[in-house]
Amino acid sequence: MSEFVDYLSLCQQRINAYLGTQLNTPQPRLERLYSAMRYSVVNGGKRVRPLLAYASCEALGGQPQQADPAAAAVELIHAYSLIHDDLPAMDDDDLRRGQPTCHRAFDEATAILAGDALQAMAFELLAGAGDWQPATRLQMVQLLGHAAGPQGMVGGQAIDLGAVGEQLDLATLESMHRHKTGALIRAAVQLGALASEQVDDEQLAALGQYADSIGLAFQVQDDILDIESDTSVLGKQQGADVARDKPTYPALLGLDGAHRLADQLRDQALGALAGFGPAAQRLRQLADYIVQRRF
Amino acid sequence: MSEFVDYLSLCQQRINAYLGTQLNTPQPRLERLYSAMRYSVVNGGKRVRPLLAYASCEALGGQPQQADPAAAAVELIHAYSLIHDDLPAMDDDDLRRGQPTCHRAFDEATAILAGDALQAMAFELLAGAGDWQPATRLQMVQLLGHAAGPQGMVGGQAIDLGAVGEQLDLATLESMHRHKTGALIRAAVQLGALASEQVDDEQLAALGQYADSIGLAFQVQDDILDIESDTSVLGKQQGADVARDKPTYPALLGLDGAHRLADQLRDQALGALAGFGPAAQRLRQLADYIVQRRF
Repeated sequence: MSEFVDYLSLCQQRINAYLGTQLNTPQPRLERLYSAMRYSVVNGGKRVRPLLAYASCEALGGQPQQADPAAAAVELIHAYSLIHDDLPAMDDDDLRRGQPTCHRAFDEATAILAGDALQAMAFELLAGAGDWQPATRLQMVQLLGHAAGPQGMVGGQAIDLGAVGEQLDLATLESMHRHKTGALIRAAVQLGALASEQVDDEQLAALGQYADSIGLAFQVQDDILDIESDTSVLGKQQGADVARDKPTYPALLGLDGAHRLADQLRDQALGALAGFGPAAQRLRQLADYIVQRRF
Repeated sequence: MSEFVDYLSLCQQRINAYLGTQLNTPQPRLERLYSAMRYSVVNGGKRVRPLLAYASCEALGGQPQQADPAAAAVELIHAYSLIHDDLPAMDDDDLRRGQPTCHRAFDEATAILAGDALQAMAFELLAGAGDWQPATRLQMVQLLGHAAGPQGMVGGQAIDLGAVGEQLDLATLESMHRHKTGALIRAAVQLGALASEQVDDEQLAALGQYADSIGLAFQVQDDILDIESDTSVLGKQQGADVARDKPTYPALLGLDGAHRLADQLRDQALGALAGFGPAAQRLRQLADYIVQRRF
């Protein structure tokens, strides 16, 4: 496992270095905007989505550098979504990864704009960087646009906001998470695979199943950690979801039931990789990691 | 001129019909989000950017239907930017085109998400719709991503927010507008040209110059109308910019000076089209229209 931790660390360094090159202030009057963008992108973050993109590219026999712009584009979308989710009109959070949220560190207008800017940058990056074939690249832009939009991540956030205080059943809770976090995780895995330029449709579909399972497992584990971890480890207020009367898996299934579901989803994810060889080892380890993580 | 008004009306009907097909609610829990998106996209709007895209496509010998997704993508970006600009943390506007702004008609969280969703949709649409060659399409995604992002429209909004209460000189005011509105107008013209798949680099550059001039002219005229029009015609509060101590052209140049600048910019725009034949007639008429409009 320590060798896997080294791999995680290498991928994190890789994506942090790549993202760092994309966020230089182009002129003095844009300093505050770019500061807010850097603050939200460069500070901390587990980089789960880039890790998935790199591991997926590797599973198809690709090299890490092939996946850099794809990993970065997905992470820029993720970073923008966190900025907007934290806003007073949305989740109204003061802390993110143990630091003041973007609108607290800067101001609300700058936070809205920083999020908007990061989203646009993600698509510009995907359209222009890397050495992919035009058809590959277009498939990526389309996948990411769909995953980020109203039928993906943003739709999930809308469903979530509409459901606060409501008793959701398991199917609806699952649908909400498949939109809110699942869509972007699926995009990370599929963009990473496309980045290798050696993926066929069957493999892409199998990776989609893998991603759907670990995406949901990730969310179940998030709900568990919201109860089990303390604030100093989690970097956000412990019990925040429960306090807000947000629907969670432990609330519906109990803590033990939630743990069992996370394990089942991990097993489903591993099953989806049955047709892949040893090159998919990192994806398998990531499935374990997502369910075992403590923060 | 009445023949030109008919042309404007036909283009408006065309883009409204096309946009209408893109915004159907896919499932009941997304109804509020999609309602807010439709509310902001379908209601009114002069459709200046789509008009420019259609006219530019025509100038290169293309057919209107070739430009539909490009015109729509640019308009979706414009619509999202208006939603976010109107938010309480930004310009805090209650009225837009004579109707309650999106966050007034719905709520702030829904307005933020509707804007976010429209931006993602713009890129998904551009990547997937239409019959363009992959290379053409990628160039469009890249141009639009750049124009919408921190070095384009969002950057301009950040410069604008940072400049409230500050006495800007002419060069800085121009730089702000080149980002804030100019970048997207340039994208509209260039995407429309690319949509024809018959544009060379020299023509694309000339159209960029045309767009830069009319983009600035559009903004100068906006500042003039903010003073000269009354609220019922303009659909927003008359004198709102002056009241907010926003930098404007009439404030720097006087009303007469601002009118003269708008005329000069229109002439520059026409000059940039010198190498184009009669097919660019609509672009020429649009340059006149932008400076002569009263609302």
